[in-house]
Amino acid sequence: PLRGKHDDRSLVFADLTREEYLQIQQYMVKQNDLNISTNRLTKPSDNFLFLIDLSLPKKADVLAYLDGKAAKPVREATVVVFYGAGGYIKEYVVWPLPNPTNRKDVTKERYKMDLPINARTVTVGEYALLFKLFKDEVFSNLKKLMKESFDVSESKTLNAFEQMPRGVRSGDRKTWVSFFRDVSGMYIHPVGFEVLVNHESVNESDWRVERLLYNGQYFENVKELREKYDSGSVKKIVYKELPNYASLKPEHKQLQIGPQLFYAEGKRYSVKNNHILYLDWSFAFGLSSLTGMRVFDVRFKGQRIAYELSVQEAMSVYGSVTPGMIITKFLDSSIGIGRFAHELVRGVDCPYEASYVDTYRYIDVPAPVRFRNSICIFEHNMGQPLRRHFSDFFHNSYGGMVNNALVFRTITAIGNYDYMWDFIFYQSGSVEAKVHATGYISSSYLVDGSLKHGHQVAEKVLGNIHTHFINFKVDLDVLGVKNVFQTKDMEYVNVSLPWMPDHYAMVPQLVEKQLKTEKEAALRYDTKSPRYLHIASREVNKWGHQRSYRLQVFSFTGDHLPESQADEKAMSWARYKVAITKHKDLEQTSSSLYSQNNIWTPAVDFSKYIEDNESIENEDLVAWVTTGFLHIPHSEDIPNTVTVGNGGGVLLRPHNYFNEDPSIHSADGVYIKPG
Amino acid sequence: PLRGKHDDRSLVFADLTREEYLQIQQYMVKQNDLNISTNRLTKPSDNFLFLIDLSLPKKADVLAYLDGKAAKPVREATVVVFYGAGGYIKEYVVWPLPNPTNRKDVTKERYKMDLPINARTVTVGEYALLFKLFKDEVFSNLKKLMKESFDVSESKTLNAFEQMPRGVRSGDRKTWVSFFRDVSGMYIHPVGFEVLVNHESVNESDWRVERLLYNGQYFENVKELREKYDSGSVKKIVYKELPNYASLKPEHKQLQIGPQLFYAEGKRYSVKNNHILYLDWSFAFGLSSLTGMRVFDVRFKGQRIAYELSVQEAMSVYGSVTPGMIITKFLDSSIGIGRFAHELVRGVDCPYEASYVDTYRYIDVPAPVRFRNSICIFEHNMGQPLRRHFSDFFHNSYGGMVNNALVFRTITAIGNYDYMWDFIFYQSGSVEAKVHATGYISSSYLVDGSLKHGHQVAEKVLGNIHTHFINFKVDLDVLGVKNVFQTKDMEYVNVSLPWMPDHYAMVPQLVEKQLKTEKEAALRYDTKSPRYLHIASREVNKWGHQRSYRLQVFSFTGDHLPESQADEKAMSWARYKVAITKHKDLEQTSSSLYSQNNIWTPAVDFSKYIEDNESIENEDLVAWVTTGFLHIPHSEDIPNTVTVGNGGGVLLRPHNYFNEDPSIHSADGVYIKPG
Ligand SMILES: [Ca+2]
Ligand SMILES: [Ca+2]
Ligand SMILES: [Ca+2]
Ligand SMILES: [Ca+2]
Ligand SMILES: [Cu+2]
Ligand SMILES: [Cu+2]
Repeated sequence: PLRGKHDDRSLVFADLTREEYLQIQQYMVKQNDLNISTNRLTKPSDNFLFLIDLSLPKKADVLAYLDGKAAKPVREATVVVFYGAGGYIKEYVVWPLPNPTNRKDVTKERYKMDLPINARTVTVGEYALLFKLFKDEVFSNLKKLMKESFDVSESKTLNAFEQMPRGVRSGDRKTWVSFFRDVSGMYIHPVGFEVLVNHESVNESDWRVERLLYNGQYFENVKELREKYDSGSVKKIVYKELPNYASLKPEHKQLQIGPQLFYAEGKRYSVKNNHILYLDWSFAFGLSSLTGMRVFDVRFKGQRIAYELSVQEAMSVYGSVTPGMIITKFLDSSIGIGRFAHELVRGVDCPYEASYVDTYRYIDVPAPVRFRNSICIFEHNMGQPLRRHFSDFFHNSYGGMVNNALVFRTITAIGNYDYMWDFIFYQSGSVEAKVHATGYISSSYLVDGSLKHGHQVAEKVLGNIHTHFINFKVDLDVLGVKNVFQTKDMEYVNVSLPWMPDHYAMVPQLVEKQLKTEKEAALRYDTKSPRYLHIASREVNKWGHQRSYRLQVFSFTGDHLPESQADEKAMSWARYKVAITKHKDLEQTSSSLYSQNNIWTPAVDFSKYIEDNESIENEDLVAWVTTGFLHIPHSEDIPNTVTVGNGGGVLLRPHNYFNEDPSIHSADGVYIKPG
Repeated sequence: PLRGKHDDRSLVFADLTREEYLQIQQYMVKQNDLNISTNRLTKPSDNFLFLIDLSLPKKADVLAYLDGKAAKPVREATVVVFYGAGGYIKEYVVWPLPNPTNRKDVTKERYKMDLPINARTVTVGEYALLFKLFKDEVFSNLKKLMKESFDVSESKTLNAFEQMPRGVRSGDRKTWVSFFRDVSGMYIHPVGFEVLVNHESVNESDWRVERLLYNGQYFENVKELREKYDSGSVKKIVYKELPNYASLKPEHKQLQIGPQLFYAEGKRYSVKNNHILYLDWSFAFGLSSLTGMRVFDVRFKGQRIAYELSVQEAMSVYGSVTPGMIITKFLDSSIGIGRFAHELVRGVDCPYEASYVDTYRYIDVPAPVRFRNSICIFEHNMGQPLRRHFSDFFHNSYGGMVNNALVFRTITAIGNYDYMWDFIFYQSGSVEAKVHATGYISSSYLVDGSLKHGHQVAEKVLGNIHTHFINFKVDLDVLGVKNVFQTKDMEYVNVSLPWMPDHYAMVPQLVEKQLKTEKEAALRYDTKSPRYLHIASREVNKWGHQRSYRLQVFSFTGDHLPESQADEKAMSWARYKVAITKHKDLEQTSSSLYSQNNIWTPAVDFSKYIEDNESIENEDLVAWVTTGFLHIPHSEDIPNTVTVGNGGGVLLRPHNYFNEDPSIHSADGVYIKPG
């Protein structure tokens, strides 16, 4: 029996439907002045419709609509076109859906700058040309080396894995591509061959190989490598057959299955459209192709607690002596985090009995794509009490309640890594955003000096040291949008004991502060910060304390890239454990699609959200939370990194928000009194 | 089908049996020279057999036995006698079991000091006399006040909750006792009445009330309070009937049960005596009446990874303006952590299908007591993959494995708080020690100035700010007992790019260190320490890296009590996040039974283990890990603190220990390749 009712107003946050994508695509293609192609293999020199995604309505309009004070906001889409012919990128808003009749170029409004064409993500069309270049200009001219070193033949090739950023300054598009054995789990099979290709020009005829690395030695061009290889003046790699240690095939058959979850009396949650009900909770959900999973209008007992809770970015900085990883900084939302939310495997990725939802996306494709079962929802028995007390003093009794909670999950496999994203809804009124990393590490071929940057993890393979930084957007609205940011902590104070005043003792006191401005509330990753962080209302609970939600961050991050580095601005959100900004519709994300490939002049520099140092007192506040972990790969990362211990997250907990723990009203409570 | 075989040698770690307790008790009582009583109500002035517990054999002897090189060590018990008549405490070793014929006073050997009688835990016998004193000297003489302020009558009383330490210097036994409504969950029903009783003398006739606190006002004695109350010169508390907001009784009936766990094909673990087998894991277990849960000889695939993993201490420091909590520091092992491991409730404390084990204890009782189902063991489906990778580049495939792990659990309800203790055994070769707090907060009656120390959480009730510090002993033996302590971290280094040497970039490097001495390896709680901490062998893995286990600590602790405080030495383990010592049989625990009541001259001062600054290179190392959290109580702590977010722990993870992730060999692995 469900407690609430589904609300179709959640559709204001719904991802675009297959039909909407098609309508928008047709609308854009019909704009003759734009001359846009939707072909899968559109060349960089042509104009390509790269992305169609929901354009979120303005928050004020949505709130008015949700609260019954205004009509439904017009449904709009964001369309991204790569204008290869013109040398720029444009972002449009297209409306109204489902039958668009208008478009508006919003590039300048959103980014305060023009977007140069080389800020674009590499498309399937560009990859095809790059692969052709490797085949025609590299592999064809190095047949002997390829055969002897890597056993490459007509029927056997190498796979490519590219590194980013593509150069060292704006305008650069010079990519080091590392080659790997053509086996499953190639990411941990580097062969020791890397190629620097300059593909700055949108005309592929201008592209050229600018440098090669073979077995730790650099060459100016293919010819030099071939000649030196043939003349024997190169330290050679001699091919050696190896078992595939990256294989995930189990050796043993399962003789006895492990514990399973079952819903003896049916599911206690319900999914309708993009709206979920679970006991006292309700929320809307979506999946952005770029930033990934997100929920909106999160309510507990009908009261909105968060307007938005969303993944923003997954970033990694690597270390290496070889070019393939020496300056590597991956900014996944520029490739698309949600884009890689593939089908979840029942019984492994989520419990067998979970509910699964399909999603549709349009990113670097000729037509919208359906991703079957790419979101899962389930209630899980966490295997522990949420609360309990046993008493055998004075009053013998037992009261407790098992921790059953709702999990909302996607897993995004972006190349080598798989990030598992969970939003968890607890009966105590807490919501948790969690991320765990699994999948394959990135690796490089072992050469002299490699071990300064990691550990060897397989034959001639270095697991490169790297950071994982994840950014979440947490737009709590605590009893409305006007909130303050409070901190609480402890401090020892020397006090005289009242019954023996000549005796002093250090006694813990509560230290509370209300931070006034964005700069004050930008808590840097390398500084000590107060232990309790709160988004609070001016309204008070029954006992006169400001009602608040606390942000408790779980994080094991490494050091953030020094700000001296030109590419740091594209990831400036990672300077802060938590940063509080005043909400703006135009500050929708902490990163952008254009950050990876124009990392030196990023379209979004999060630190600018703070630079104007606005007041954060009685404003609509957004918390940007950074979590993650330092990863020093080790042999147990082969074949895959395990989720246990490799994650982080943020728990949003009520703190003087309710007058008591709301789980006391749960029907899951158990009470025992000796008869 | 179980992979390993049970090993009866685990019995070397087994808790004493009921028969053994009885034999030892009889043996001790028969020692006529000692004149020991075992009566439940033995007076402090008599000699009382307080505790019988297993005395662990020397590690070297056990290892020789386990490794088949020596006979089984003689089984011995520790016996603690409170000699009220003589004014001291003695600890004996009694042997051989089960039919003891010898005893030896080991007090001096173990503690390097005599134990004064006032270092003892308050016994049931002493409590009975204290309650009698309250009744006869306090309540009987304040009948009017008691009735008018608290509705106390013949049929209705108040309950007492005492604070510790009992004074401010060695020898003190002056306890502030706070009174609470006589309802279930009394801990959050303080009435505003506190009494300081001096019970330093073992003769109860010397005991006296030294001060009283009523409604924030102090009085020298009962007479003064009564007279001032009667004359109206006291600000009175007027009794008011209140609903019991501490009640854990659910209001609603459960209409639909939540998700349940079931073992469709039976259990994949086995418990025999005190030995557990689970897939590749095996270990022995025990439950000390004082320190609580512990496991020994933890092996993975037959190889010993840890000799001991055990709870050591649970400590809290409180803040208040009122004496009941102003100097309160609870050291739970002095009362007994394992002592309060009560029956676990099926379906709440552990899954319904879990295995439950009984334990027997002898502490402050006239005869051994059986605690039914006080340990639970179960395999849990953690609701997420342990690892997975999805690939649709080059090679389409999916490999993954659900995270099924074994949980070993006790929950100890020590007065108001319930600590849930979990040791979790993962298929990736990791073991985790976790603690969560639930149950009732300690509270005090709200008076002027109270809010400096916490938040109001109920009518006239302050939830006092406090810390939770938990200490675990982690005696890893990585490929034998001779280990080193290594740290790993990252550091940005400015390097020239090999293919464009005039360009520099900050690149992460691996920084490894081997710490040489105990002082170097005592990582203070308030300093930055390296991100990776390892106990390592000199043996290397296939790739030449030292095989190690990493300690990853999850902690949210508040500030540790300043060392300037006289009572800090009894909790000096909390100075360190992690401290590494050279193993000694005489450094079995980081705290002691005698720390709470002689807190100023503690029998064990952990910091002394480090003071000799021994070498920790190629020695048998023990890691002492501190975790916990700062607790600023809030309305949602009423009625009970929830476990979510209120915990800490330490994860022991293989790091270059295996040549690959051992879970790859698990039969739980799943592999899918498109046909
Ligand atoms: Ca701003
Ligand atoms: Ca907000
Ligand atoms: Ca030492
Ligand atoms: Ca050891
Ligand atoms: Cu990683
Ligand atoms: Cu607490």
